[in-house]
Amino acid sequence: MKLKFTKMHGAGNDFIVLNAIDQVINLTREQYRFLADRRYGIGADQILLVEKPDNPEVDFKYRIFNSDGGEVEQCGNGARAFAKFVTESGLSRQNPIKVETRVGIIELHLEKDGSVTVDMGNPVFETSRIPFLTKGLTSDEIGSDTIWNLILDTGGIKKSIPISVVSMGNPHAVQIVDDVNRAAVAEEGPLIENHERFPERVNAGFMEIQDRHSIKLRVYERGAAETLACGTGACAAVVSGIRRKLLDSPVTVKARGGELKIAWEGEGHNVIMSGPAIIVFNGEINL
Amino acid sequence: MKLKFTKMHGAGNDFIVLNAIDQVINLTREQYRFLADRRYGIGADQILLVEKPDNPEVDFKYRIFNSDGGEVEQCGNGARAFAKFVTESGLSRQNPIKVETRVGIIELHLEKDGSVTVDMGNPVFETSRIPFLTKGLTSDEIGSDTIWNLILDTGGIKKSIPISVVSMGNPHAVQIVDDVNRAAVAEEGPLIENHERFPERVNAGFMEIQDRHSIKLRVYERGAAETLACGTGACAAVVSGIRRKLLDSPVTVKARGGELKIAWEGEGHNVIMSGPAIIVFNGEINL
Repeated sequence: MKLKFTKMHGAGNDFIVLNAIDQVINLTREQYRFLADRRYGIGADQILLVEKPDNPEVDFKYRIFNSDGGEVEQCGNGARAFAKFVTESGLSRQNPIKVETRVGIIELHLEKDGSVTVDMGNPVFETSRIPFLTKGLTSDEIGSDTIWNLILDTGGIKKSIPISVVSMGNPHAVQIVDDVNRAAVAEEGPLIENHERFPERVNAGFMEIQDRHSIKLRVYERGAAETLACGTGACAAVVSGIRRKLLDSPVTVKARGGELKIAWEGEGHNVIMSGPAIIVFNGEINL
Repeated sequence: MKLKFTKMHGAGNDFIVLNAIDQVINLTREQYRFLADRRYGIGADQILLVEKPDNPEVDFKYRIFNSDGGEVEQCGNGARAFAKFVTESGLSRQNPIKVETRVGIIELHLEKDGSVTVDMGNPVFETSRIPFLTKGLTSDEIGSDTIWNLILDTGGIKKSIPISVVSMGNPHAVQIVDDVNRAAVAEEGPLIENHERFPERVNAGFMEIQDRHSIKLRVYERGAAETLACGTGACAAVVSGIRRKLLDSPVTVKARGGELKIAWEGEGHNVIMSGPAIIVFNGEINL
């Protein structure tokens, strides 16, 4: 079976996009894993499927498979690639584009500068919904944010790390560092990710504040280690910085893979993310 | 500029193959680096160019660029991919195929089972030609091989490692281990690679002998860390095992990326390597 595909990336997070409208796609978990393999297959963080929607009021159905072959709910960087793909391939002339996902309908806006804007939904702060177990833990209030003193055991030495916790559909623990290039991402990342107080694990963000509209960010992603740019991690960091009264919307987030722009008007508002989506090449593979 | 390419691999060592006969290819170092990048480009260990030969007595010129954009002399796994590519793409009906490289003319044989056989040349044992500095070092003679007791400094503790040294165009230090899966490749590999007795550094091989015609092998490659399958490393290990009277030609080498078959009739003969070459997909990229 011949399969046409397009390879894309958004701030270094890379995708194989499959048009499942003009070709029938019914792949096994092993086939998704093969496609995502960087040596034996095509190579990507995720595989994105463009399908006809079930709901007649939207334009497309957007499905996401991880490199382990499992289907997942959401990917903000992938949503930008999706919008760029359906436009460039001639499948859509809409703007915004309405897309059905496993967690609801999302709107994708194509900007004049080639970037794409995605509504990332409402941040959630209730610790039980992160989930984050706070029993017996000390905290401070800074602005409207709660900073928890998470205790890490670094080789027998206990260390207290002040973190904000926020869910963007997935859980985040955000800390402020003086210099993101010298931050202990590789050492602390896995200890935070797997900390017993996060029963579903957590993404660990390390944010350096440059000015009120600009941060540098590194994220140790749950199940993926450090990545080049985590869309939900950028949202979580900016929301935490705004609540701590250190940042004002909009904020430019400089990740290793590229820049994202995050806007948030505060409590009760959705987080809006803008960023690049690049078509790298088109290909055809025999499966 | 639109560039057509084919993505291939040979035992997990992966390649972008460019037909420079039917399209004009004159890329900069940065463009090769971009093509080899696994997130922003196509992704590969090496880029192989199929060119018209300067010498009218051969079929093609074969050039190799590393992922850092620099041109290199030889790649045995790449040579198999080269032969498969020119045959499958209709550029050649020859068998064997004669190919001009920077280190001379090589012959590539297409086998009936789809594998490709490459003459890897003569192994070199003179320590000055590895190069390997032996002054003051103790050694033992086993069979026709010289086993050197290389001293490694593992965190202040000195450890003696018995190694054979051989050049297959590039330098190799081969040691025998009981269990290749438990071998200290990550720890000892960089210490051997950068040992002061190897002025041009060295590839460190870890060989488990299964029977007289079969080994398991892991190689810590110079400048590349552990790889899935090193063609010259497989040759070096088998040559060392045959000289130690532990192996008989031909020998199946089981690397993490796949199997290679190595034949060597002893002193004065060339080493012959057979192995797979797989076309993964075809693509087109804008540069």
